Amino acid sequence: MSGNSLGKLFVVTSFGESHGPAIGGIVDGCPPGLPLSEADLQPDLDRRRPGTSRHTTQRREADRVQILSGVFEGATTGTPIGLIIHNEDQRSKDYAEIAAKVRPGHADYSYLRKYGVRDPRGGGRSSARETAIRVAAGAIAKKYLAAQHGVQIRGYLSQLGPIRPAGFDWAAVEQNPFFFPDAAAIPELEAFMDALRKDGDSIGAEVTVVASGVPSGLGEPVFDRLDADIAHALMGINAVKGVEIGAGFAAVTQRGSEHRDLLTPDGFLSNNAGGVLGGISSGQDIVARLALKPTSSIRVPGRTIDAAGAPTEVVTIGRHDPCVGIRATPIAEAMLALVLMDHLLRQRAQNADVAPTVPVIPPAAPA
Amino acid sequence: MSGNSLGKLFVVTSFGESHGPAIGGIVDGCPPGLPLSEADLQPDLDRRRPGTSRHTTQRREADRVQILSGVFEGATTGTPIGLIIHNEDQRSKDYAEIAAKVRPGHADYSYLRKYGVRDPRGGGRSSARETAIRVAAGAIAKKYLAAQHGVQIRGYLSQLGPIRPAGFDWAAVEQNPFFFPDAAAIPELEAFMDALRKDGDSIGAEVTVVASGVPSGLGEPVFDRLDADIAHALMGINAVKGVEIGAGFAAVTQRGSEHRDLLTPDGFLSNNAGGVLGGISSGQDIVARLALKPTSSIRVPGRTIDAAGAPTEVVTIGRHDPCVGIRATPIAEAMLALVLMDHLLRQRAQNADVAPTVPVIPPAAPA
Amino acid sequence: MSGNSLGKLFVVTSFGESHGPAIGGIVDGCPPGLPLSEADLQPDLDRRRPGTSRHTTQRREADRVQILSGVFEGATTGTPIGLIIHNEDQRSKDYAEIAAKVRPGHADYSYLRKYGVRDPRGGGRSSARETAIRVAAGAIAKKYLAAQHGVQIRGYLSQLGPIRPAGFDWAAVEQNPFFFPDAAAIPELEAFMDALRKDGDSIGAEVTVVASGVPSGLGEPVFDRLDADIAHALMGINAVKGVEIGAGFAAVTQRGSEHRDLLTPDGFLSNNAGGVLGGISSGQDIVARLALKPTSSIRVPGRTIDAAGAPTEVVTIGRHDPCVGIRATPIAEAMLALVLMDHLLRQRAQNADVAPTVPVIPPAAPA
Amino acid sequence: MSGNSLGKLFVVTSFGESHGPAIGGIVDGCPPGLPLSEADLQPDLDRRRPGTSRHTTQRREADRVQILSGVFEGATTGTPIGLIIHNEDQRSKDYAEIAAKVRPGHADYSYLRKYGVRDPRGGGRSSARETAIRVAAGAIAKKYLAAQHGVQIRGYLSQLGPIRPAGFDWAAVEQNPFFFPDAAAIPELEAFMDALRKDGDSIGAEVTVVASGVPSGLGEPVFDRLDADIAHALMGINAVKGVEIGAGFAAVTQRGSEHRDLLTPDGFLSNNAGGVLGGISSGQDIVARLALKPTSSIRVPGRTIDAAGAPTEVVTIGRHDPCVGIRATPIAEAMLALVLMDHLLRQRAQNADVAPTVPVIPPAAPA
Repeated sequence: MSGNSLGKLFVVTSFGESHGPAIGGIVDGCPPGLPLSEADLQPDLDRRRPGTSRHTTQRREADRVQILSGVFEGATTGTPIGLIIHNEDQRSKDYAEIAAKVRPGHADYSYLRKYGVRDPRGGGRSSARETAIRVAAGAIAKKYLAAQHGVQIRGYLSQLGPIRPAGFDWAAVEQNPFFFPDAAAIPELEAFMDALRKDGDSIGAEVTVVASGVPSGLGEPVFDRLDADIAHALMGINAVKGVEIGAGFAAVTQRGSEHRDLLTPDGFLSNNAGGVLGGISSGQDIVARLALKPTSSIRVPGRTIDAAGAPTEVVTIGRHDPCVGIRATPIAEAMLALVLMDHLLRQRAQNADVAPTVPVIPPAAPA
Repeated sequence: MSGNSLGKLFVVTSFGESHGPAIGGIVDGCPPGLPLSEADLQPDLDRRRPGTSRHTTQRREADRVQILSGVFEGATTGTPIGLIIHNEDQRSKDYAEIAAKVRPGHADYSYLRKYGVRDPRGGGRSSARETAIRVAAGAIAKKYLAAQHGVQIRGYLSQLGPIRPAGFDWAAVEQNPFFFPDAAAIPELEAFMDALRKDGDSIGAEVTVVASGVPSGLGEPVFDRLDADIAHALMGINAVKGVEIGAGFAAVTQRGSEHRDLLTPDGFLSNNAGGVLGGISSGQDIVARLALKPTSSIRVPGRTIDAAGAPTEVVTIGRHDPCVGIRATPIAEAMLALVLMDHLLRQRAQNADVAPTVPVIPPAAPA
Repeated sequence: MSGNSLGKLFVVTSFGESHGPAIGGIVDGCPPGLPLSEADLQPDLDRRRPGTSRHTTQRREADRVQILSGVFEGATTGTPIGLIIHNEDQRSKDYAEIAAKVRPGHADYSYLRKYGVRDPRGGGRSSARETAIRVAAGAIAKKYLAAQHGVQIRGYLSQLGPIRPAGFDWAAVEQNPFFFPDAAAIPELEAFMDALRKDGDSIGAEVTVVASGVPSGLGEPVFDRLDADIAHALMGINAVKGVEIGAGFAAVTQRGSEHRDLLTPDGFLSNNAGGVLGGISSGQDIVARLALKPTSSIRVPGRTIDAAGAPTEVVTIGRHDPCVGIRATPIAEAMLALVLMDHLLRQRAQNADVAPTVPVIPPAAPA
Repeated sequence: MSGNSLGKLFVVTSFGESHGPAIGGIVDGCPPGLPLSEADLQPDLDRRRPGTSRHTTQRREADRVQILSGVFEGATTGTPIGLIIHNEDQRSKDYAEIAAKVRPGHADYSYLRKYGVRDPRGGGRSSARETAIRVAAGAIAKKYLAAQHGVQIRGYLSQLGPIRPAGFDWAAVEQNPFFFPDAAAIPELEAFMDALRKDGDSIGAEVTVVASGVPSGLGEPVFDRLDADIAHALMGINAVKGVEIGAGFAAVTQRGSEHRDLLTPDGFLSNNAGGVLGGISSGQDIVARLALKPTSSIRVPGRTIDAAGAPTEVVTIGRHDPCVGIRATPIAEAMLALVLMDHLLRQRAQNADVAPTVPVIPPAAPA
C-alpha cells in the first residue's frame, strides 16, 4: 500500500524490486535553476555500490542512474525529476530456497503476513538495493544545500561490532572501503571481517552523520520536528534499530548543568543538542548516530518455518553483505540531506516576511 | 508554520501554548461506534498531570479535558473529535527573566531564529504542557486498539540517571510516582531526586514502551515503515534525544546468529527485532526505548546571551520538572498508540481483498 | 474518518456539529508577525451569520469567534491558531422527525450508509454551520494576502433562480442582504423570496468570486494546479454542484481564436482564462463561479423512506435557508482565500533562488 | 515544486516532459493480488493515443507502457508499480518559434513567471502528453474497481462546439473517433472538424463521465468530499475550465421540490445529485461533466509578446489537436477512477468495525 514517499515539499517517491527490470524514483519539488546531470549523482551511487571490496556482497551492479525528466539544458526546471537504474545482475536462481522458507530476522515473515504474497527474488521490495534511489535523490539535495547554503553533509562508520576508532580524521574516511575515520584500524577491521566471513556470520555497526552549516530555524514544533523527521528518515533505512541525536542515550545519565550547551556571543560552547533545540535547528552541527543490526542472511543454520508453517532449518547462501553497516554511510548521508532539504523549503515559505522584531542574535558558530 | 499534525488516517492536530486560555486538538479519523466519553481520557491525563508528587513541577493543573464534537449518545460518530483543556495556573510573572534571556539548552534560541518572535510565557508552544493533548488523543487510540484487537500498550521508567531497576514487575509500575518497575528501588529514587532538587539541577532518564497483541502486517516498506514512524513519534516528544527498537544500539555488537529471532510453529524464540521486521509488524511485542535529556530549566547558573546578543548569566527559577522523564511514560504510550492506530487503519484499506495465496503461517506468539 | 483538513502549508482543520457545545478549528501555518485579533475575523462571520434578514434561516447565533492560541501581544507567532465558536441556539427538538426519516436530497442517506450512525441534530457535521470556521480561517488568509501582496478577494451573488443582475456595481454588493451587485433588482429579489417562502420551497443560486492582485506563478503543474485546488475548495462548500474558472462552460462553444487572451506589453486583452494558465496564476484576476443547489429542507412533502427502510413522506419544518446561495458569498471568498494563501506559501519555498534566466516579462495588468 | 501526486492511499505520481526520453509514474497503494499486465493498460492508452484519426494531432506515438515493478507472476504484490512510456516522435525543431514567443492562452507565460525558465519542447511539462500516465494509472484503478465491486466507468463527448447529440447510445461511443454517443451525428462532426482545420482554428468541447455501481459511503465530509475530489481531479486535466456534478449549473434555476431526488424502498427516483449527497456517494450513478477550452495552439495569428517582452505576433504551426476534448474522454474516465479508488480504500479503513446500528436501508438502485 502507499507509503513510498518521503518529504512534504521536496518529495521523493521510489519504486522497484531487487530483481525486476529496474528501480527508480521521482524527486518532486527541486527548485529550478540548479545545474544537474547524472555526473552529480553517480559518485554517491558508486560509494554505495556493492562489490567494491571483498567485505561487501559480490553482486555486480554498475548502478548507472539516468535522469529522465526535470532537467533542460543542464539545469533543473522545477518539474519532477524522473530517475531510473536498470537492474543487471539478477541471479534469481539463488532464491529458490528463500521462496520456500521464512528466513528468521528477515522481512519474509512480515511481508507474508501483510500482503499474503511476496516477491522472493532478492528480497523484492525489502532489498537494500532500493536505497540506491534514495542515494541518487539525496545527491540532488546535497548539491542544492551546498550550492545555496554551504551545507556539508558527511558520514562515517563509527563502530563495527566491537571496534571503535581510536583516532579521528575526516580525510581517512573516504580512503578505505569501510568509511572508517581511523586509518590505523583498517587492518584490524579487515581481519575481523575475514574471520566473520569464514564463520558465515554477520555483524552490527554504528554510523554517524554530520551536517555542518545548516541554517538555524529549520523544523516545526510538536510533530514535524527536525529531530523527529531525522529519526524517521534514519530509522527507515534497512536494518537500523536505533537513532540518536547529539548526546543521545548518553543524556540519560547526564545532569542538566552538564548537558545544556552554554551560549556566548561567539556561539555555543558544546553540542550535546546535536544541532536541534525544541525540534528546530540551532545552527550547531547536526549530529546523528544510527545502529545497524547484523544481516540475517547468513550461512549459520537456524530454526525457522517453511511456507506451510512446518518447522525447518534455513541456511542463506546467495550473495550478501556480512556487515550492512559498511555500505550504510552514503545512505545515511542521503537521508539526512533529504530531511534538511525538505525543511529548508518549508522554512522558506515563512521567511520572506519575518520582520526581525527582536535584536538579532549572532549566527551560531559550529561546536 | 504547519507541522502540528500527526498521522495519515488517524490524524491528530494540536494547538495551544502553556499560558494561553486553552490548549486543544482535533482527532480526525476515529471510526464510528466506539463508546467514548471524557472518563476514558482522564486517567492517562491524570497520570501525566504535574504536581502529583514532590518530584515533578508544582504547577497545579486539573487538566480536565472536554470533548466538543464527534461523539453522539456516548459513541463516536466518525466525525472529528474536538478536544479542549483550559489552562488554569498561569503564573506568567515567573517568566520575565526568561523573556529577556536565552536559556541554554532550551528552545528559546531556535524559536527566535525561526520565527523572529516567541511567546516566552512558560515556553509557549515548546512547553511540555502541549503533550496533554497527545495523551488525550492517545487514550482514544488505546481504547480502540484494545477494544478491537486486544492490543495492550504499557510503559515504564527503565532508567533514571544512573539508577536501573534490579527487578521487574508490571504491577509495581503504577504504584509509584516514577512509573518504575522495581518497588524496592523507590527509596533510592526518592533520595536521588531530593538531592538533585537541593542542587537545583536536573537529570536524564530512559523510558520503555511495550505494545502487546499488535496484529502482524502493520507498516509500509521503505519510507512509512512502522519502526520509522515510531521513531518519528517518540523523537517528537520534548527532550527525547534517542530512540531504540528491540535490541537497539546493542545490535551494533551482535552477530547475525545472535540477533535474529528464530521461528518455530509456536512463534518466535526471542525478540531482538522489537516486533518489527522490514518495517512491518511481526506479531511480536513492539518494544521501544527513548532517552530523555535533563531539562535545561535549572537553578545552576549558566553562561548565555540576552535578547540583544550580549553575554549574560541565566538562572531559571519558576516551576519545572527536575526529571522530565518521570512524567514521560504516559506520553510515550500515547505516541506509540497513535502510530499503531494509524497503521492499523492503513492496513485495513488493503485487507478486505487479500486472498491468502500462501499457506497460512500460525499467528506469532509473543516473545 | 480523516479528511477534515484543507491545504498543505496553510492548513485548516475543522471540527464540530451544528448542535454540539461548540465548533472550532486550527489554522496551522500562518507566518509570524501578522497583526491579528478576533476583530479581524468577526466582520466576515457577521456577513455569513444567519438571521440577519427574513430571507435566511431564523436561527440566532452570535457566531462570536475566540482565538485560543498562536497570537501573542497582538500578532501571530507562527504557531497554530486555535479557533472556537460556541453554539448557542440549539433547538434540538425540531429534529425528532428528521431522526426518524431520511430527507431526500440531504446527506442523511449517505451519512447513514457511510457511518452506520448519524447525529441528526441540525444535520450534525453536514450542517452549513461548520462553514463559520472556514470563514474565520479565510479571514486570516485574506488579511495576510492583502497585507503582503495587496490581494483583494470579493464575491457576489451572480444569479438567484432565474434572476440575473442587469447592472453591476461592486459598491452595491455589501448594501443588500443578497450580496447582489444590482441595487435596482433588490425589490424583485425580495418579492421572489417572499413568494418562495410562502410556497415552502427553495431555490438554487450562482455565486461569483474574484481575486485581484494575485501574484503570477502560483500553482503547480499536473495535479496540484491552482484551478484544480480552487475547484476542490469551492465544490467542497455545502450544496455546490458546479464550478467554473474564467469562461467556464462557455468555452465549450468558443473557438481558440476567440478564447485565448491576447498579450501585449501592457498586459492581457481579455480574461477567458480566469487568471489561470496551465494550472498556474497568470496575474490576471482569478474569476470563479459556483452553482448552488436549492436546499432540500423544504415544507413541500416528498416521498422517502424511514429508518427501517419503509416508504413514508417527509416535510421539513425547522429553520432553514430557502436559498443557501444567499449566505454563500463570504464562504466562497474564504475558500478562495485559503487556496491562494496555501499556494503563495508553496511558491515562496521556491522563489528565493530563482535566477531570472530569461528577460523579464512585464507584470500582467489586471484584465 | 512538488504537487505531482494525486490521492492519499492510492497515490499516483507522474514525471516527464513531452520531448524528454520518457514519461512515467508510480502507482503507490494498489492492493496485492490484482492480476495485472501491460495488456490491461494498453487499451485505454490506445483510446487516448494521438494520430488515430485526422481529427487529432498527427504526432505518432505508440504509447507502449512498461510495468517496471510491483507485479510478480502476473499479479500485484502491494508494492509500488513503476510505469514508463518512452517518447518516440520528438520533432523539437517545430518549437523554435515557440521558444522565442509567449503563446497566448498557453502555459508559456505562467511557467515563465513561476519558474523563470521553461522547457519549450512540446510544451514541456504542460503538454497533454503527460496525461498518458494518468490513463495508465487509471486503468489499474478501473480494473480493481470492476473486479472488486463491479464498478463501471464510462465517458463520452457530450458536446463539440455547438453540436450536441440528438440521440444517445453507449454502444456508439467506442465506434467513432470522437467518443460521441450519437452515430447519426458523426458526418456533421466530421464536416465541422474539417472546416475548422481548414480555418486553422480550434474548438471547445464537453465531456461527460459516469460511474455505475459505486458503493455508497465513499467520501469524507467537509474538505475531502467525494465531489470536491472529483472536481479537483477533472479540473486538473489540461484545458478544463468547468466541472459539474449531477444537475450542475442547471441547479441554479431549480426549486428544491424539483431538484431533490425522492427516495423509495427500491431506490432513488431521479439523479440530480449526480451520485453525491453531502460529499458522500449515495449509490446512484456518479455523473460529472467537464468543459474543455479550445486549444490555443492555432494557425490564426494573434498578438503577443516575445521573450524580451516586446510586442509581436504568433502563429502556432506544429502538430496540435484542433479539439482537445476529442481525446479527453479516456483521461476523464481515468481521473474519475483514481478518485473513486482512493476513496474506496479510505472507506475500507473504517468499514471493518461498523456495527449496523440502524436498520439497513436497501441498496440504492441506479437512477
